[in-house]
Parts: sequence; C-alpha cells; structure tokens
Amino acid sequence: VKESNAQDKAGFAAAVQEAAGYLASSRPTAVNLFWALKRVQQAVAAAATDDVAALKELVLKEALAIRDEDEAMCRAIGEHGAALLNDAAAVLTHCNAGTLATARYGTALAPVYTLAARGKVLKVFADETRPLLQGARLTAWELHQAGIPVTLITDNMAATVMARGWVQAVTVGADRITANGDVANKIGTYGVAILAREHGIPFYVAAPASTFDLSLASGDQIPIEERDPAEVSHFGLRPIAPEGISIFNPAFDVTPYRYVTAIITEKGVIRPPYKQNIARALSGESRGY
Amino acid sequence: VKESNAQDKAGFAAAVQEAAGYLASSRPTAVNLFWALKRVQQAVAAAATDDVAALKELVLKEALAIRDEDEAMCRAIGEHGAALLNDAAAVLTHCNAGTLATARYGTALAPVYTLAARGKVLKVFADETRPLLQGARLTAWELHQAGIPVTLITDNMAATVMARGWVQAVTVGADRITANGDVANKIGTYGVAILAREHGIPFYVAAPASTFDLSLASGDQIPIEERDPAEVSHFGLRPIAPEGISIFNPAFDVTPYRYVTAIITEKGVIRPPYKQNIARALSGESRGY
Repeated sequence: VKESNAQDKAGFAAAVQEAAGYLASSRPTAVNLFWALKRVQQAVAAAATDDVAALKELVLKEALAIRDEDEAMCRAIGEHGAALLNDAAAVLTHCNAGTLATARYGTALAPVYTLAARGKVLKVFADETRPLLQGARLTAWELHQAGIPVTLITDNMAATVMARGWVQAVTVGADRITANGDVANKIGTYGVAILAREHGIPFYVAAPASTFDLSLASGDQIPIEERDPAEVSHFGLRPIAPEGISIFNPAFDVTPYRYVTAIITEKGVIRPPYKQNIARALSGESRGY
Repeated sequence: VKESNAQDKAGFAAAVQEAAGYLASSRPTAVNLFWALKRVQQAVAAAATDDVAALKELVLKEALAIRDEDEAMCRAIGEHGAALLNDAAAVLTHCNAGTLATARYGTALAPVYTLAARGKVLKVFADETRPLLQGARLTAWELHQAGIPVTLITDNMAATVMARGWVQAVTVGADRITANGDVANKIGTYGVAILAREHGIPFYVAAPASTFDLSLASGDQIPIEERDPAEVSHFGLRPIAPEGISIFNPAFDVTPYRYVTAIITEKGVIRPPYKQNIARALSGESRGY
C-alpha cells in the first residue's frame, strides 16, 4: 500500500482492499485480523481527500493507533485478569498469547506480567503446543526473558500436572469468540479446557473485544484452518512418521462456552451466562464484521 | 548369563540374579518385566541339577516359553477385545502396544488385528505420543505395514477427533495395573481417558495378567519414572526450547480406575467393580511379585 501508484482515492482504496484481501486470506480462523483490516479500510473510505500521500499517511496513522490501543488493551486485560489470578501460585497456558503475539503484555499472559510487575511472581507451566511448538519456542522464551519461572511440558502432560495440584488456573488466548461464548483457539485448547474442568481448575480465556464475532451464533460456524500434513510428519526436513499414512492437522479447535470459567477482556471480566453478558459488555461497539 | 563362567548352580543363580537386577533397574514403572525376570530366576532355583550348561539351557527354554505364551496371550486378548470393538468404525490409540512392543499381535492393537484377520478393517487414529513419538514412529508404521488405515495426529488433537465423532472407542496398553484397577501407562493416557469419558467413548485397557500388581492397592503407589529433560527440550540434537528453563518429563501417568470402561486380558474382559473382578479373574495365579 505504501508503494501504491494510485492517482486518486478510489484507486488507493482499491489498492488497500486488495492488500486487505490478501492479508485476510492468510488465516481463516482468527477474527481480529479481519477487524483491523476493515478498520483501516473504513478510515480510508471516510477520508475527505483525494490526495494519495495524505491517504497513505492516514493508513499508517490508523495502524499505529491500533498498535497503541492494542498495548492499552493488553494492559487492561492484565489488570482485570490479575484480580482473578491473585491467589494462584502457578498457572498453565497453551500456545502463545503473550508479548510475542501482541503489542506489549499479550492477552493470556498479561495477568501474569501485571502481577509480576506488582512483585507477585507466578510459576507458569507452558504446553509445548504441537505441531509448531509455540509454547516451547515462544512462551517459554518470553517468560524466561521476563524472569518468570516457566516449566515446559509436552501437551499430553497437562493432565498429570493438574492431577498433582500444581496449577490453580489455566489461561489461554483466543482467535475468535462467538456470540454464545464458544472459543476458537490453537489446537489443543479444547482438551485442556476439559481437563481443567475435570480437575476443578478455572479455565480463563483472555481476549480483546476485537476477538468477538457476534455475527456467528456458535462455534460450529467458525471455519477451522487445516494445515500442511508435513507439520506433523516432519520435524524441519526430518521425517518422524512413515510415508503413505493419513495425517489430520487442524490448526485450531473450538472450546464450547460451558468449559469457560470467564473471559477476560479490556472492558472487564465476562462471566456466564455468556450470550447476555457478552452482548452487554460489547454494546456501544460498532464492530461491523 | 549365556557367557557365565559359573561352576555350579549357586554361582549360576547369582549370575542370573545379577543380570535380572540390572535389567530390572532399567525401568521402574512397568511390572511385566519384573514378572518375567522373577519367573526365570524361579526356574533356575527349582532346577535339580548343578550342571551349568543344563541351567543355561533351562533359562533359554523359559525365555522362549514366555515368548510363546506372550504370543498366545496377545491372540487371546485380540479375541476378547474383538467382541468389544466389533461395532466400531474407528478407534484411537496412544503410544505403542502393538506388534513392535510384544510377541505377535500386541495388546492394545490385538483386537484391531484380530478383526482385520476376519475381514473387518477398522480405522485407527494414532496419537504421536510426545516426547518420544512412539505413535508416529511405531504405531503408525506397523499399522500401515499391516494394511490398516491409520491417521496420525498430535496428542492435543485427540479431543477434536472425539468431538467430531470420528472414533467409537479408545484402546491403550498398560505398564502396571493395581488391585483397584488404576492403570499406569505412557504419559498422556490419563488425559485421553478423561477426554474419552467426556465424549461418551468407551476407554479400554488391553493388558496381560502379568501387568497386574496386586501388591499395590492403588495407582498412587506406582513409581513414575522421570526421564531426561532433553527428550522434551531437544529434537535429536536440535534444541527446540530456550536454555535455562525448567522441564518436567514423566514417562508415565496413572489413570484412575473410574475412567476405565473395561480391561481386556487373555483371561477375558474385566469390568467394574474392579477390585473384586480383578481378584477373581486372576485367582489361581501365583504371580509372586
């Protein structure tokens, strides 16, 4: 978009739309991306100028505003979530929804960072999160950098960690939340939610308002991206499974709302019944998905 | 033991005991190994000869007898389990308890092989089973070799496979089963058992009588082997996690009996209440752990 040769607003808006369409096609499941792209497009549409240089400036300004709001949003999630985790000694998280995935504090880890800044350091158990190992490569790294004690486990060890009483809460991010409170997030989240409930451990989803998609009534309407089987069958270039077998590689799953103890947003903590409380918490917002 | 220079029965028995002690020290959790070692030692103790060559022959004979009985045992488990899986179109399994882990048919997979031999081919979903990937490297391989359609998934995809209604049963092996029916098996089994119950899917444990340890009242008395953190933090020699973090790497977990739908043994299918029914099924056996 920055390099666009468009001569007027219509041409530039078309270039923005093309770029947005390309970016939107990258991942079907997460909805914040669509929200941010739409917001930039709307800013261009609403502009009262035909000057392309000014429109480019506007796009940059809008993107930076989104980033700044993202940082403020993460901080607000951290504040609201800190109250929920205040009595925990350790939490378990899945995938990465921290500093590396967002501006500043992240979502799932924001309450942990907020508490650490207040001098209360929680331990974090990080699921490695196969197949792409975001927990091992990103979550463990950023927590360790921040001086927060992190213990890495394989995904299938979460149940045993819970059974031993080592974690008092689970906190994860979200890629899309539907009107009824169903949560799409990284593959494996649904299983962790079931295990948490079975062990009487609260399961918290931390996500900004832009993650909610009120156009969908429930999670079974969320498209689930399936990715290259080689992510499972190979480790880098090295095969770890025989050739010729089938592989199922969904990148996300849907956690039904009944497993979710609360959703932590920048606007506050949303609890069941979700349908009413989500609508109320987000009211006044014009999201326009 | 074959190369022992012992001159008499006492010396040879000491050599057998030393070898058995070494082998027993290899893994603390599985109990069949201890059972087989004890059985060989008892055969030597009961022998009425001082001739070391004859005693060596006896050890070999006993080992081969155990192998043949193992094969017959796997076939019997296959027969008993086939009746339970007859109406299933697909099953999910964790780790490897098939041909590669036993003599012939295996335990967890024996019913699948038995049904296949009868012309009824089930689909199998194989958890890859981190960290050592027995599901990807062994289970997927042996099923594919046998012409049974296998779909490999990462461990954290099991819940989604169940939610989609793709499997009608779970079948796993066991390393030790206590008097109350608690089951120690490869790490991750406990989580799969919880997920199965949550989805109303029967959870079957297939294991020979030698897996039962009636000297232990419940699973919390089973020692759980913890292994090298590098199994989790590295892939081969390649690091996949930052240095300096903690890693928890238990090789097994314990599934409480209440999650186990039935235990398939060579003596028949054992159902709850386990305490009475295990004792009854194994009565007449002198196991002498």
